[in-house]
Parts: sequence; C-alpha cells; structure tokens
Amino acid sequence: MPIAPGSVGIVEKKYFTFANPPDEMKLESGGKLGPVTLAYETYGQLNDRGDNAILLTHALSGDSHAAGYYSEKDRKPGWWDFMVGSGRPFDTDKYFIVCSNVIGGCKGSTGPTSTNPKTGKPYNLDFPVVTINDMVRAQKYLIDHLRIKRLQSVIGGSMGGMQVLEWAIQYPEFVASAIPIATTSRLNAQGIAFDEVGRQAIYADANWKNGDYTLNGNIPAQGLSVARMLAHITYLSEESMHEKFGRRLQQKEKLGYDFSTDFEVESYLRYQGESFIKRFDANTYLYITKAIDYYDLPRDYGSLENAFKNAKSKFLVISFSSDWLFPTVQAKEIVRALKVDGKHVSFCEIDSPYGHDAFLIRNDGMEKMIADFLSHVYDD
Amino acid sequence: MPIAPGSVGIVEKKYFTFANPPDEMKLESGGKLGPVTLAYETYGQLNDRGDNAILLTHALSGDSHAAGYYSEKDRKPGWWDFMVGSGRPFDTDKYFIVCSNVIGGCKGSTGPTSTNPKTGKPYNLDFPVVTINDMVRAQKYLIDHLRIKRLQSVIGGSMGGMQVLEWAIQYPEFVASAIPIATTSRLNAQGIAFDEVGRQAIYADANWKNGDYTLNGNIPAQGLSVARMLAHITYLSEESMHEKFGRRLQQKEKLGYDFSTDFEVESYLRYQGESFIKRFDANTYLYITKAIDYYDLPRDYGSLENAFKNAKSKFLVISFSSDWLFPTVQAKEIVRALKVDGKHVSFCEIDSPYGHDAFLIRNDGMEKMIADFLSHVYDD
Repeated sequence: MPIAPGSVGIVEKKYFTFANPPDEMKLESGGKLGPVTLAYETYGQLNDRGDNAILLTHALSGDSHAAGYYSEKDRKPGWWDFMVGSGRPFDTDKYFIVCSNVIGGCKGSTGPTSTNPKTGKPYNLDFPVVTINDMVRAQKYLIDHLRIKRLQSVIGGSMGGMQVLEWAIQYPEFVASAIPIATTSRLNAQGIAFDEVGRQAIYADANWKNGDYTLNGNIPAQGLSVARMLAHITYLSEESMHEKFGRRLQQKEKLGYDFSTDFEVESYLRYQGESFIKRFDANTYLYITKAIDYYDLPRDYGSLENAFKNAKSKFLVISFSSDWLFPTVQAKEIVRALKVDGKHVSFCEIDSPYGHDAFLIRNDGMEKMIADFLSHVYDD
Repeated sequence: MPIAPGSVGIVEKKYFTFANPPDEMKLESGGKLGPVTLAYETYGQLNDRGDNAILLTHALSGDSHAAGYYSEKDRKPGWWDFMVGSGRPFDTDKYFIVCSNVIGGCKGSTGPTSTNPKTGKPYNLDFPVVTINDMVRAQKYLIDHLRIKRLQSVIGGSMGGMQVLEWAIQYPEFVASAIPIATTSRLNAQGIAFDEVGRQAIYADANWKNGDYTLNGNIPAQGLSVARMLAHITYLSEESMHEKFGRRLQQKEKLGYDFSTDFEVESYLRYQGESFIKRFDANTYLYITKAIDYYDLPRDYGSLENAFKNAKSKFLVISFSSDWLFPTVQAKEIVRALKVDGKHVSFCEIDSPYGHDAFLIRNDGMEKMIADFLSHVYDD
C-alpha cells in the first residue's frame, strides 16, 4: 500500500462505552439498551473552541473506518478516503473528522453480535430493533464525550443521509450544516420490497436458525450473499452495468450450456456476495435494513415541512442522475420542504453514470461542491 | 366461477409427443432430446385452408393455459383470458388459437421434472439446457402436427416476445405477422444480474441438493420463493408499487419493532412467493431463466439487422412506458433494425403504470391495437 499524499495515514479504531445500567439508553421502540459501545475513528485535531468538527455518517454496510489504513499491510483505505485528509474536502488541516459505526452494527459498535450482559451470549434476535433516530442519539453521546461543542457539518450518503436529516432535526442548534447525499426522507415501496427480499434470503438459509447461529459456527453465508448480490444490483445503474459488463462472457469463448458462470456480471455479483459474507453479519443486515425501512419523516412529524420546521442548519442536498434506488425526485421532496420552511438550502443533482453508489466514487464536481460549501459555512 | 360472455369456457390440456428415439430433437447446445412432449391447448376451429391460426407464446412462469377454465370450480381463467374468445382480440369465431407450454417447462411439457427414459428418474439437472430457439423449433413440430399451414400471427410478451422474434426469423414464410410485446432482442446486464440472483437463491436452499430433490419430497421452496419475490419486484413499476402499497402498514396501527410483516408490500411479496412454489418447479426456474439470459440475436447473427434480414412477417412491436425490465429503448432497437431492413413494422409504446406485467392486464389501447392489426393482416 503506497500511502498517497494527503492521506490521514495509519489510523486506529477506538471505542466509547456509555449508557451503563441503570442509565440505559431509551430506544424509539420503547425498549432500553445498555451498556452501549460505539466504535469510532477521528482524523485531524479538535480546536480549542470545539467547533471545527465534522461527523461522517455511514451507509448500510459501512463502518467507522472512513479514511486511512489500519496497518501498512492493508490493501484498501477507509470507505471515503478520497474525501478525508490534508487538502481534501474534509480537510484534516482544518477540521476534526469523526466517524462511528452505528448502533446495531457489526464493526465494533453494540449490535446483534455483541454479548448480551444478561445472558453472557450474543444478543442475536434478542437485540432490540433500533432506528435511525436511535443511531443518531447514540452518536450524540460520543460527540459530547469528545467535547465537541458544535458540528460544522454532518455528512453522509444513503442511510448516512437519513442520519444527516435526523441530526439536523434533533439537534438544530448543534449542527451548522447538513449534507444529505443520495438519500430520502422515507423509502418507497420498491425500496422496502428489495430490503424484504434480502431479509427473506437470510431467513431462508438453513444456517440462520431464527438468528441463533454463532459467528464462529455455521453462519447463514449463502442467504447473506444472495441479499448482498440483490442489493448490489440496486446500487448500480443499468447504464454502468452495461458499460462495465454488457453481455461479455466470463473467461470463455462460448456459452457453457450449464449452470456455471457464463457472463462477467454473474461472476462480479458472486464475488460481491462472497466478499461481503467475510465482513458482515447476517442478523445485523436484518436490523440495519429494518432501520432504513422504518425511517419516515412525514409519518413521524405529520409532514416533511413539519419535520424540518425547527431545523437551523444550512443544507446542501445532493443526488445523482442515475440513482434509481434513491432517485432525484426524493431529494427534491426534501429540498421543497426545506424551501417551504424558508431554510437555507442548496441542491445539486450530479450527473453521474454510477447509480446509487456514486457517492463512494471520486467525482470532481461532488468534491469541489462539498469543499466549497463547507468553507463557506466555516467562514461564516 | 361465472363464465363471462365471450369466454372460451371449459378447455382441456392436450399433449403431443414427438422426436422419439432415434429421431431425437437436436438442441442448440449440440445435445439431443427425445421423446419430447408438449402440453398445449387450442381455442376456436382451424379452417380448411389451415391458415387462420394464431400462436400465443408464454412468459417465464406461464403455461399452455392461456384462456378458459379447466373446470367450473376453477377460480381463475388462463393467463390471457381477456384476449381470447368470441369477440375478443384473438377472436375464436375467426381464428384457431394455439398455446403450448415451452420445452423445458413444468406444466406438462418435457422439462427437468420429466422422467429421463434412460434412468427412469426425473431429469433434474441432467436435462439439457434449452434455448428460445429450441422452444420455437419444438413448437413447430406441434404446429405441423395440428396441420396448420400458416400462422396468421405469433404473439407473446416478455420471454414470449423472444419466441415471437425467433419464429419470424426461423420460419419467415410461415408467419404472416409477429407481435412481440414488452420484450428485447437480448437481455441487458441488469436483467442477467436479476436472473442470476434468483438462481443463486435456489442454489442456496439446502433442499435444492444440486437439483436432486423430488417433487413429492423436500423441495427448495424457500429459495424458489425468494427468486420469485425478487423477480416480482422487477415486473412492477415503482409507480404502481407506490400506488398499490405505498408505505401502508399490514393490519397494524404501529410499527412492530420486530421481524414480522410491517408493510403491505412485504405481505404481498410473501404471498407471491408462497403461491408460486405451489405451481412452479425450482429446477425449471433455473432452465427458463438461463434460456432468457442466453437469448441474443445480435450475437447469433452478427447484428440485429442481419437477424431480421430474411423475415417476411408484418411486425407490431409493443412496449409499456413504465416497464423498466424490458424498457422501451430495447423495443426501439428492434423497430430500428426492422426499419433498416425495410420491413413492415408498426410500433407503439403504451402508456401504462403497471410496469413489465402490463401485457397481462386489461388495457383498451393494447386490445384494440392488436385486434385491428390482426384483422388488417388477415384481410390482406
């Protein structure tokens, strides 16, 4: 791994535990959870006023590792590495960047794979259903612990964007700016449907056993793999799949006339499924997709306008032209409601062929727009 | 069941067996298959000249039962019942309508569930991979057996549309008109990807056992159900899912905060999966999706123009505005190639909110257009 100029270099995952009994965290469901640990990373330095912090919020399969490398042997950096570092949009010379694994996650934060203190065994399906609101309130514990007094910005794509909106609504005084990317104020029926089929694929795996598998035993790998393959199709555009694979055959001259891999796109999806099961947990997949499905600001507040009524952040809403999972029309609903409320809002649909996952891919327009927006907010 | 006026009433499934050894049918893969049985139905009467016949070709999960009822107890008629009957677009007072289950199917035609004469057991994965071309050549045996001298039209949607194109190419003199609906000359990468995930869901089912299950034993029901749920999402438009379900909860006032059914769309999909496993076979699903994925006229003929070069049929190409699985752009590729070749071609994109499945739903525009087109062809 040659570390590129501007990289944050070698980073470390840290842990913060709170909500120890009897002061458990109250969940939106009415349940309680504690103790709660969040895994997190920070890049850059917090200033004395504690007001130069930026919170990055991750998507379904993301984690706290937004930037840098854990060791010199790592082949890949964090999931938003190109955005974080010296001279990069989230400039570590200027900002203190925080990213934490969501509550309910499987990358160090308390979730279904964590040990239930009441039983000494993994929670599995005894873990309570958590929501985007719960994720955000858990993050607030961490932000306070880090002595951050104000967030210059909260930024994230997809499920991360839902957290961004929730931050702006729950903590209006605390969030100077909010950048929801490739997101929605509520998933449409088609999105719920895709998530449900992914969950059904996990339920269908004989190793799932109603969630009672152990991570070092027979995990529901095939079910999780199918769920991931399906989801992955929705993250790409038809155009990018056509460009990337078309109908090209996979290392063969002719059709196989059997059920081995014929087309490159099949091989690619199988690889996506196989690599995902090494890094993600099936029960966690159930919980996180449920949190996404439940998110519904118009339901929670009567209307989207009402949801944003007390928000004080400056908003930059970004969508991608080829994103059919969280399409531009849904971003525009957010923008329209913010405008009705008289909020400070900028909007851009970025022309990109890469579908929903475009926010994870380098894009000069996106990078410059975010850097400029952040520096205007910060200079104000 | 109150039989509606114009209905073909009670119908009967018939069987035709051909390609008895040593005269097996040669398959596109190079393999041989025989004997081959096709299940079929006919409605109306063949005229003395044998030239008033119309062949209906079915989609992935369809069968020979296009119209009427098998008994007075049947709750539902055949899959295109509203199109077939006295005074209906495929007018049984005028035309002799034929529909057969494709080779490779599980509704009476020879397929993976049939007994392999060499072993006395079901073929399962010993069944050869069949193609759209094989399906059409098998149908030709049946059409000849029925003493049909000329087809007034071959008509079908989705995979049925692929068969329509293949008929016009393979038997140019025999097919007066061809009506490919909601179809394509080759599936795009996204379509192959969805099919592959469906197959992976079946492979992942512990009961699948590399295809060696028996129909009266433990079938890979959950895997097939997941495959169907996924496919079903692609048959509907986002708009129709929104209209039909939105984010409405299923028989509850509040979110469940558990993994039971929360949303109506989840309940609907689960029902689709559960009803499908009662009427379809998992191995057959693998074979039929493979046939669809393999279909590629530009590959087989060098170009789409070349594929249609010798066609003599009059074409009516129909697409639906909200079909994102086989979108209008793919129908236009067919139309463009036919025009380059100087063929007689009409094209219509029908405005419909119902997505890919729109061809299975009553639509005055579609019905009138097809009826008019057929009567012009017939009167010529």
